[in-house]
Order: sequence, then C-alpha cells, then structure tokens
Amino acid sequence: MGVVVSLEEGKNKQASVKPLVDLTRADMERVNQLILSKAGSDVQMIPEVANHLISSGGKRLRPMLTLASAAMFGYQGEGHIKLATSVEFLHTATLLHDDVVDESDLRRGKSTARMIWGNQASVLVGDFLLGQAFRMMVEVGSLDALDVLSSASAVIAEGEVLQLSVAKKMETTEDDYLSVIRAKTAALFAAAAEVGPIIANTPRSTRNALKSYGMNLGLAFQLVDDALDYGGKAADLGKNVGDDFREGKITLPIILSWRRGTDEERAFWRKAIENGETSDENLEKALGLITKYGGLTDTIARAEHYGAIARDALAPLPDGAHKEALMEVIDFCISRVN
Amino acid sequence: MGVVVSLEEGKNKQASVKPLVDLTRADMERVNQLILSKAGSDVQMIPEVANHLISSGGKRLRPMLTLASAAMFGYQGEGHIKLATSVEFLHTATLLHDDVVDESDLRRGKSTARMIWGNQASVLVGDFLLGQAFRMMVEVGSLDALDVLSSASAVIAEGEVLQLSVAKKMETTEDDYLSVIRAKTAALFAAAAEVGPIIANTPRSTRNALKSYGMNLGLAFQLVDDALDYGGKAADLGKNVGDDFREGKITLPIILSWRRGTDEERAFWRKAIENGETSDENLEKALGLITKYGGLTDTIARAEHYGAIARDALAPLPDGAHKEALMEVIDFCISRVN
Repeated sequence: MGVVVSLEEGKNKQASVKPLVDLTRADMERVNQLILSKAGSDVQMIPEVANHLISSGGKRLRPMLTLASAAMFGYQGEGHIKLATSVEFLHTATLLHDDVVDESDLRRGKSTARMIWGNQASVLVGDFLLGQAFRMMVEVGSLDALDVLSSASAVIAEGEVLQLSVAKKMETTEDDYLSVIRAKTAALFAAAAEVGPIIANTPRSTRNALKSYGMNLGLAFQLVDDALDYGGKAADLGKNVGDDFREGKITLPIILSWRRGTDEERAFWRKAIENGETSDENLEKALGLITKYGGLTDTIARAEHYGAIARDALAPLPDGAHKEALMEVIDFCISRVN
Repeated sequence: MGVVVSLEEGKNKQASVKPLVDLTRADMERVNQLILSKAGSDVQMIPEVANHLISSGGKRLRPMLTLASAAMFGYQGEGHIKLATSVEFLHTATLLHDDVVDESDLRRGKSTARMIWGNQASVLVGDFLLGQAFRMMVEVGSLDALDVLSSASAVIAEGEVLQLSVAKKMETTEDDYLSVIRAKTAALFAAAAEVGPIIANTPRSTRNALKSYGMNLGLAFQLVDDALDYGGKAADLGKNVGDDFREGKITLPIILSWRRGTDEERAFWRKAIENGETSDENLEKALGLITKYGGLTDTIARAEHYGAIARDALAPLPDGAHKEALMEVIDFCISRVN
C-alpha cells in the first residue's frame, strides 16, 4: 500500500524513546511495583481485570513524562512515584471505559477486558483505578498537583462525551476533532509533564513550559496514532489497519479526505462511516481516497506543527540529559511506526 | 532589511479581498449607514469619538464576513445588516478600550481617541458602542446569534485580561500567546462568520464549518499582523515597524526567538521587553535575532497551518461566488502586506 511507504519515508530512524526509558528505569521499576500493589484488592476480579490491561505492554510514556519532568528539576522526594502511578491509572481507567463505550474487541492485539469479564466489570474496575489514583495524589499532598491532575481527569471525560457527540458525523470539522484529542489525549500528557515541575517547586513559567510541551506532544502523538490506523502494519500496531474506519471513528485523515472530496466521494464516506458499510473493499477505497487527498501526509504535517511548538516550549530550559530525552520523544512520537 | 524581503517573497500576488468587497458592496453601504446612525447621540462627544475611529479606514473585514456568510446560504431578511453592524461595533469598542489599556498613541496612522478626548471618553464611548451592539442583536431576535455574539464579547474581554497577565513576560509560551489571540481576535472572526448561517437557518454542521473557518482565519490574520509588525513597512501598516517591540508586547516572532536563543540573547530580550530598553539600536538587534531564528518565517508558517484548516472547514460547502471570495480572503490574510 502506497500509504505505508509515505509514512516510512518520513521516518527519522534515529529518534527513540530509549534515552527516556534509560533515564527513568530505576523509578519506573518502583512505579511498576506500585501499580501492581495499588491494583490489588481482596475482590479478586479487580486485580485480574486491571492486570490484564496493565500487563498488556503499553509504552508507559505518560508516567515516564512525570518522572523525567520531576528529575529534570532535581526533585528529591518520593511524590513523583505516586504521581506517575496516578497518571498511569487515569490512563488505564480511560482505556477500560473507552473500550466499553466503543464496544471494542481488541486492544494492543489482545481481547479487551470487556470481552473477557464484561462491560460492568470494566466500568467498575476503571472507577476503582480512578479512586486509587486520587488517593495517591492526595497522599502526595501537593494541592497544585492535585488540581492539575483532577482537572485533567474531568477534561478527559468531557473529551469522551464530545467524541460521542461527533461520532459517525462526517461533517465533523478539524477543530471539533482537535477539541476531542486535546481533551482525550493531550490533557493527560500535559498534566503528566506539569506535575513534575510542580512538586519540584519550580517557578510558574517552568510549569507552563512543561505543560505546553506535554499538551503539544500529546496532540502530535494522537495525530500520528490516527494516521497509523490507516497506514501502519497490523503487527506493529497491535491492531488492524482500518480499525478506526470499521468503528466509524472520525479522525483527521478522513476529515480531510471528506472535506476535500467530490460530492460522489462524500456520498461514499457517508455510506461507509454513517451507515457502517465498512467492507474490506470499502476500506481499500477509503485508503485510496485518503491517499488521493493527502489525508495521511497532511495529518503528519499537522503533527509536525504541534511537535515544533512542543520543542519551542522546552527550548529555553536548562540543557541536560532529561531535556534531551524529552526532546527526542517528540521526534519519536512523530516518526514511530510502533 | 532582510525580513521584509522574506515576507514579500512568500506573497501570493493574486490573493485579494476585492471579490468579497464586490459581493458585499450593496449590503456594506447599508451597514455603513447604520454604523453612522447608531453611533449617533445627543451627547455630542459620542459621535465625535466613535466616528474618529470608525472613519479611520479599517478594512471592515468582520462585518463583510457576516454579510457574505448570510448571503452564501440565501438569507433573505434584514437581520444580517444589524448583526454585521453589531460585529463592527464590538470590534470598535475593543479597539477603544485596547488603546486605553495599552496606552497607545497611534492607530492606523492617526492619533488614538484617548490622545484627543482622553481615556475616560474612550472607555465610555466603547461601552456605549457595546450597548448599541447588544440592542441591535436583540432586535434581530435570533437567540442563537445573540448567544454566539455575546459569548464572543465575553471571550474577547477574557483575552484582554489574559494578555495583561502575560504582558512583558518573556517566558510566555506559544500556547499562552495562542490563547490570547484566539480570544482577542479569532473569537470575533468566528462569531462574525457563524451568525450568517445561523440566521439563514442552516444545519448545525454548516454553522460549525463557518465558525471553524472564521476562528482559523482569525488566528492566521493575527499571526500575520504580528509578523508584519517586525517586517512590514510603516506606510503600509499605518504604524511603525517595531511598535509591538516598543510596547513590550509578546508576540510569536519574539517568543520563538527568545525560546530558541542563547542565554546571552535571552538576557538581551529581558532587558528590552521586561525593562523597556527599546532604543532603535535594540530594535535593530531584535530584528537581527528574529531573522537569525526564523521568527518571522515560522510565524507565517503557523499562519499557513491555520489557513489550511480554514480552507478545509469551508471546502465541503456548495461552490459559488461567496465561498470563492471567502477562500480568497484566507490567502489575502496570509499574503497581505497591508
């Protein structure tokens, strides 16, 4: 498929998340232990459901952002471990609830929790993880960090509702889509990056720089994720090419293709997305239209725009290994195939 | 100056606001009459102050957006004239108040109203125009249009306060800046473009498309405006190159240059902007740094990003002269020297 090639061509082979992984390795081991311990419960189904998703091999980018952004400013306490764990729990809870709302069967190549334990268990275990996240945040005792993370949690929920309201609506504008991904994805990246400097007691301008870094990194991350759904390889993604298409999910590649298309092509999109006619043949046709109208290349171009803002947000901060690793994550997010 | 050349090079010589002016000419004559009539008052100072600014030769882009976006959907009533006038009054009131807050001496090459009649008169005549704007909106009788315009009016005021809070702060992030121009400028462009389809009773998706067009056009417009302040010619601008610099106004060209600069260069910016050392020599140095770090070209690149979103917002709407004129305004805003 031509679209795969176009993504691969744009890839910066050097950019990697490895420097960030290396820098946060010791702390991440403690986070992983805390995750297992705080997902524990006498109610046996809770750790079963939680660990199913927790152990399914996500990159844990968000807690690493919190750890790195605290270490970057010489934070010496213990709070960053709990906040990073809270961040991952907020994320995991969102995924559990998301899969229920989207009626998803697969996530990261495995059956979703709802397929194994049902919708009710997924909703309730998600709520349990949210509760545990808030308890850990409160234990850290930083009102500012609590404010940032609890606000993010509310914004994420707003984003989910907003996504529902635009679902399967081909007229969705790029601005609507941006509002959704800003709330659903970028807000947690922003909060994850902001709480580090908060507990390290840095000036407000430094917090703002990290927040802006996280927000724009999150936007770039989600844009690329949504491009990959039409251009990646199933094995790399842990999901199939076209999953978003089959779910009728409105993401930027099809927003651009729809808006730039002819009346006839728009009728095709309506049938496919709004009426759910998502056969393999129609997916092929959709991929052809996306290529024709530059839907993937322009989605990546938008990601690069946000990547540039993230880079400038971080630029004036003191140089060092953490800053370098965070900078490289921007390139990694934009260039990743996985 | 090299910076002027770089802007001129990027200019699309064809793009013009003329098709929009031609299409709205008859309606704009009525708007201009209504402006004069509604700025009238037995309190003689009111029309004096109001007309000083009203007759100072702005492009009246915003009311033209309202007229064109109503006509585009075959609106047949009279409401668009009043709403367009309200939009221009909201804008004029903002300028009057802005000049007081910024302590500006010149606007569009003329003394500001506050220099002639004083700050109090400027504030109060601004309030009078706001009141007149609301009265006209109410007369039109569309609750939806009233909601959109009154919300914009509140958002503009929020934007002004936000701008105060980042004033002279070199750490201002691009995101902070974007929040300011989104509220200060883009929100009114968005409302101006949205109320047309509202009174023409179009579906919600059409309203959203025009709103998104206006919002992104407004962002592009303000970004270019802020680039022009460092790259235009005084005669074309009706103001002097470097006015923003001398006022210590934080706009994207200097945000980018500051964030990308060395510690030494950042110390220079702090002295210039935060301590007000804005001699001509320092302006020359600032222009050199902006050029060195691509501050103008990247500001224009950001404007092009928003221009592209505006274009895609409008794309699926029925073709015709109004759509074409609105599309051309995007290129005009990005390429304009004046």
